Amino acid sequence: MSVTAARGFTAAGVVAGIKESGAPDLALVVNQGPSRAAAGVFTGNRVRAAPVVWSEQVLKGGAVTAVVLNSGGANACTGPLGFQDTHATAERVAAALGHSAGEVAVASTGLIGLRLPMDKLLPGVDRAAAELSPHGGEKAAIAIKTTDTTHKTAVAEGAGWTVGGMAKGAGMLAPGLATMLVVLTTDADVESAALDEALRAATRTTFDRVDSDGCMSTNDTVLLLASGASGVVPEPVAFAEAVRAVCADLARQLVGDAEGASKDIRIEVVNAATEDDAVEVGRSIARNNLLKCALHGEDPNWGRVLSAIGTTSAAFDPDRLDVAINGVWVCRQGSVGEDRALVDMRYREVTITADLSAGDASAVVWTNDLTADYVHENSAYSS
Amino acid sequence: MSVTAARGFTAAGVVAGIKESGAPDLALVVNQGPSRAAAGVFTGNRVRAAPVVWSEQVLKGGAVTAVVLNSGGANACTGPLGFQDTHATAERVAAALGHSAGEVAVASTGLIGLRLPMDKLLPGVDRAAAELSPHGGEKAAIAIKTTDTTHKTAVAEGAGWTVGGMAKGAGMLAPGLATMLVVLTTDADVESAALDEALRAATRTTFDRVDSDGCMSTNDTVLLLASGASGVVPEPVAFAEAVRAVCADLARQLVGDAEGASKDIRIEVVNAATEDDAVEVGRSIARNNLLKCALHGEDPNWGRVLSAIGTTSAAFDPDRLDVAINGVWVCRQGSVGEDRALVDMRYREVTITADLSAGDASAVVWTNDLTADYVHENSAYSS
Repeated sequence: MSVTAARGFTAAGVVAGIKESGAPDLALVVNQGPSRAAAGVFTGNRVRAAPVVWSEQVLKGGAVTAVVLNSGGANACTGPLGFQDTHATAERVAAALGHSAGEVAVASTGLIGLRLPMDKLLPGVDRAAAELSPHGGEKAAIAIKTTDTTHKTAVAEGAGWTVGGMAKGAGMLAPGLATMLVVLTTDADVESAALDEALRAATRTTFDRVDSDGCMSTNDTVLLLASGASGVVPEPVAFAEAVRAVCADLARQLVGDAEGASKDIRIEVVNAATEDDAVEVGRSIARNNLLKCALHGEDPNWGRVLSAIGTTSAAFDPDRLDVAINGVWVCRQGSVGEDRALVDMRYREVTITADLSAGDASAVVWTNDLTADYVHENSAYSS
Repeated sequence: MSVTAARGFTAAGVVAGIKESGAPDLALVVNQGPSRAAAGVFTGNRVRAAPVVWSEQVLKGGAVTAVVLNSGGANACTGPLGFQDTHATAERVAAALGHSAGEVAVASTGLIGLRLPMDKLLPGVDRAAAELSPHGGEKAAIAIKTTDTTHKTAVAEGAGWTVGGMAKGAGMLAPGLATMLVVLTTDADVESAALDEALRAATRTTFDRVDSDGCMSTNDTVLLLASGASGVVPEPVAFAEAVRAVCADLARQLVGDAEGASKDIRIEVVNAATEDDAVEVGRSIARNNLLKCALHGEDPNWGRVLSAIGTTSAAFDPDRLDVAINGVWVCRQGSVGEDRALVDMRYREVTITADLSAGDASAVVWTNDLTADYVHENSAYSS
């Protein structure tokens, strides 16, 4: 499972001491080759953490030997000194592995605006390098957790090759990627341009459509590393589908473990004029705080769905909108439909279907409910 | 005070029985003339309640004799029958006053997707008409409350003329107006085109910059009625300023009484390239749930401010962003600034200043914190 499910990868997860809790906080993933092809997708936020700036540069070379990830500090909004810290981290990994720092990607997650404790982080890199193992994927996945309650891994098998991965999420989940760090690995033999294409296509309909709390992070990073260790050049469509499946699996796990959430809400927008319209409507529903509160209270408040749809620029006629909640069409033709008392709201997963009657495009956006626990978790401590 | 502060207006507020609680729920405001000039601004939501559709049509004539407002039901998403209910309400007012229904504006607020109990509402109109008084402004302001904890009125005096008004708000407060019903009256002698200009200018920088919870209502209505009873044609700039002052006063009261809020947050965006940029940045900060939770917890979490700014398309250089919270510049040049421990967060009002270093435009946007009480108030019952 995780990043060591595919052949040609070793990983480790250690306690560097960055987190005051003493929990694991540093992970290392190393591509043993023979290929080192890689692709990456980064946050759309214009305020970008030092490791994002660094890793984006690394990925331009199309090759990644190692990824070092830390929790316990985002190294965002830390100025030129913060960038030097990222650089020094990559150099330390390179020294430990005997490679170039130019092929070492760095990812960080945690509080914005604090320098990383380099006196702890750098020795942690050495320890992680010493513990690298083809069975280290699970430990690596554990070391990148922040407020995640469980670590998250996924795997998909192809014809003689494998795609595996790990993710951390929990808060600040929004489009243009959530506060997520994701590392995917494969032993398929795929060049970086094809990896990039498969990864962008996959993130566009998975991580990019998770909108737990409307907030976009400064640190989001999704990497895909190919070792080629299987010796198999995969059929492109099957490979793209395997990458998508692993991303979808991890994205669903992120939604299921969002901070303070009690409901996972699947918003299907159907019969839209364009996919862009469907996504815009889905996001608008996903970000409606009043609706998110109502769903928390197990109230199938379709008026708030319509109110959210009405704020978009998507093509629709208000008098032709249909909305179902958990399969019950509570709104028909923009007005009262089936009896809302028929909607069973007891389960964690809730499905909202919005039919725009404007075309044949569709999209699915995931979000969570808004709860007192979310407020508590995000007001009781700095994160 | 309220809508009867200006001469030439009578008002009433009664218990029609629309609300199950037995609280006042129907208000009537009548312009006794000699002028009946009026202007209106309505929700930007494309899903619009029946009374919005009706009143917008009435306002096209530039004359309003009476405004009837009910709480206890929004009459939104109620189809053609809901529109007939609005029409019937206007007709009943017209019959009671001996005027044309074409000059009767209607406003409703409450739950979306439920028909109004017309058997209670229409007799309520008759009772309100019978109780009309030049001292009825306070009762009218009380009758339009929903989850408002207090009624809201304001007044500004000119040279021989007065502008007064009432508002209800509380939830679903957002741009393009909040769930707000506002009626302003003046005894100044101003034609409808000039009223429209003054009202649009005033709402643009007041109600339109209140963004309590990011949700835009289907029912927002702001009306300005001029009786001309003072016989004074006001100096246009002074009149516009009086209208703006009353709107600003009422907008501030809406923020101060937003559902479940414990903080009123004033977001000043300064040195922006354009006013549009300043407003975009202000709104993005206002809608960041993570920041709103942090401020609830009295945590001056400037990283979340930067993260919100970074999602906008405004002109700025991330390395030149300065952010102050309550006057302490906790972020300088996109990185750590003054000690965040210096920020005093004990008071209800919090000021966030974001300096974009990109020009000389500015804007102020108001919002509230995100609290467990907000979640409770909006999940524990349908609204």
